[in-house]
Amino acid sequence: MKENRDTISSLGEFGLIERLRAACPEGSSPDVIVGIGDDTAVLRLDDRHALLATCDIQVQDVHFRLETISPEQLGRRAMAVNISDIAAMGGSPTYALVSMALPPDLPLATFDGIFEGMRAQMAEYSAGMIGGNLARTTGPLVIDVFMMGRIAIGHLVTRHGARPGDDIYITGETGRSSAGCAVLDKYGVSFPDEFADAVLAHRRPVPRVKEGTTIAQSGAATAMIDLSDGLAADLAHICRESNVGAEMYEAKIPCSTTVREIASALGENCRHYILYGGEDYELLFTARPEAEQEIQRIAGVCGTPMRKIGRILPPDGGIKLVEADGTRVDLHAAGWNHFTV
Amino acid sequence: MKENRDTISSLGEFGLIERLRAACPEGSSPDVIVGIGDDTAVLRLDDRHALLATCDIQVQDVHFRLETISPEQLGRRAMAVNISDIAAMGGSPTYALVSMALPPDLPLATFDGIFEGMRAQMAEYSAGMIGGNLARTTGPLVIDVFMMGRIAIGHLVTRHGARPGDDIYITGETGRSSAGCAVLDKYGVSFPDEFADAVLAHRRPVPRVKEGTTIAQSGAATAMIDLSDGLAADLAHICRESNVGAEMYEAKIPCSTTVREIASALGENCRHYILYGGEDYELLFTARPEAEQEIQRIAGVCGTPMRKIGRILPPDGGIKLVEADGTRVDLHAAGWNHFTV
Repeated sequence: MKENRDTISSLGEFGLIERLRAACPEGSSPDVIVGIGDDTAVLRLDDRHALLATCDIQVQDVHFRLETISPEQLGRRAMAVNISDIAAMGGSPTYALVSMALPPDLPLATFDGIFEGMRAQMAEYSAGMIGGNLARTTGPLVIDVFMMGRIAIGHLVTRHGARPGDDIYITGETGRSSAGCAVLDKYGVSFPDEFADAVLAHRRPVPRVKEGTTIAQSGAATAMIDLSDGLAADLAHICRESNVGAEMYEAKIPCSTTVREIASALGENCRHYILYGGEDYELLFTARPEAEQEIQRIAGVCGTPMRKIGRILPPDGGIKLVEADGTRVDLHAAGWNHFTV
Repeated sequence: MKENRDTISSLGEFGLIERLRAACPEGSSPDVIVGIGDDTAVLRLDDRHALLATCDIQVQDVHFRLETISPEQLGRRAMAVNISDIAAMGGSPTYALVSMALPPDLPLATFDGIFEGMRAQMAEYSAGMIGGNLARTTGPLVIDVFMMGRIAIGHLVTRHGARPGDDIYITGETGRSSAGCAVLDKYGVSFPDEFADAVLAHRRPVPRVKEGTTIAQSGAATAMIDLSDGLAADLAHICRESNVGAEMYEAKIPCSTTVREIASALGENCRHYILYGGEDYELLFTARPEAEQEIQRIAGVCGTPMRKIGRILPPDGGIKLVEADGTRVDLHAAGWNHFTV
């Protein structure tokens, strides 16, 4: 897209968010524990409890295609990406409101399917839809979910607690969702069977609620974020909010056989998906070195791999990728950026 | 719009909402005091306090035109319509999250103006923006606001408390906003000066927060709603939720000179705006006859007219308009309906 200094595309999503943040100073109320700039806002309810609040807007043909995802999957996905933000603070989802801008010729079966998916996804956490708003649009289908959650204030994990010397962990693995998305773009719904698990990761992301709450309750994590923008970009978010640098060891970052095969089939570098592909909804978190045993205990409890993939550096260390041969390169924060990609 | 039994346009906005309501049974949690089907959802925070939560999605060229409203007015409006929903429960706004789907060529000055308007509108109530989400769209600009508010549970006023014999009141007057919208549609921004107050009512609605909270705290109202869909449609919402009928006296419904003049200039019946025009954001409420003096005291305190325009009937009384000559006609609930109008 051609940049124009007078339009929003000149700033990109993160530039726009920073602009808003400057215009909306937090701390006007002592009840705002976390305002703009983290996975969710955090509001004090009483001395011990906080309300989490987040939203995520998804636009047809930007975030999803009705041709390559079922209505139920789309509904689940719209909820899952918000639930993931709640999980990234260490919280549990409670209630959602749903806004939709609907093209009038949307099939009723699609509408019903989307809400059935939303309901089913929320039910997995005993969470529910309590309101919303429907409007007509002349453009693409837009689904916007507002999700609330709860957390004990003492368990809250933000993006800004990482300290030099902390280890960097991820749950599960990255790259599958963006590789699956690339498969759908290339082959449509008639994709090769061997890519099915990546396509499923894209269509049906699983938010890491049990992992997030267990990590948070253990007190082991110093900072946490969910991987929505891509590993490189989301690590950069933690570094910026914590005012630290980081190094990530490429050899330690898990890469599934499927992602390798997709990269090979599409003539793409694996890194493209693993470092810069977004929408994995895994958790990226930091912890003191002495917490390693505790984290592996949690990984066992949850049945989810939690791999140490890097280390937090002082701010002047930059954000580096250590390649397999030891070469250090800048890890450009080139993940999803909705206005310039 | 042509109806098609297989698309959402066959059901209309209210039909779709009823469909969702059936699919999302409330009461799965004792914390949900009010779920889908009122101005806002109401969540119990503790024995005495509740959280209000609502959202309102606005689509370019459906709800607003960038050609006929300034960015600041648009931002204020997006907040005001949500604040009005909070006021209709008797509550005060506290925090908002904002989602936007942005065309990449949107001028940065427009983006900044919208947020400046939002910030200014919230600041009037010492309320603030604490989060949001921005995405790219290939279609029209979409602004979705998620608004939270607070209320003492004992002061809550819903749509379902109206009882036969109650009087029906409105604050201010209706029809100005829809008449102002019609003026903009007809003349563009070069409209005759004498229509300016109606255009302003459309561009810059004022939510009735002081009125709503004062009415709620007095305990005088049995049911309340804000006029977003139009007087006829919103009265029908109260009647349906309260399982009652109603009669409204046309001669008692205030109609400004401006609305009469606009109706005359555009060859339209006044009723079109007063009964069926939406987006007035006045409050429509019901109260026992013995509360009349208290309501006039509140009107004086707020400096806002509160006029008695009708009476609640038993359910079999239907919803009637009593014309100036005493003729009783059905008051069709033909206000805004985003999918069939």
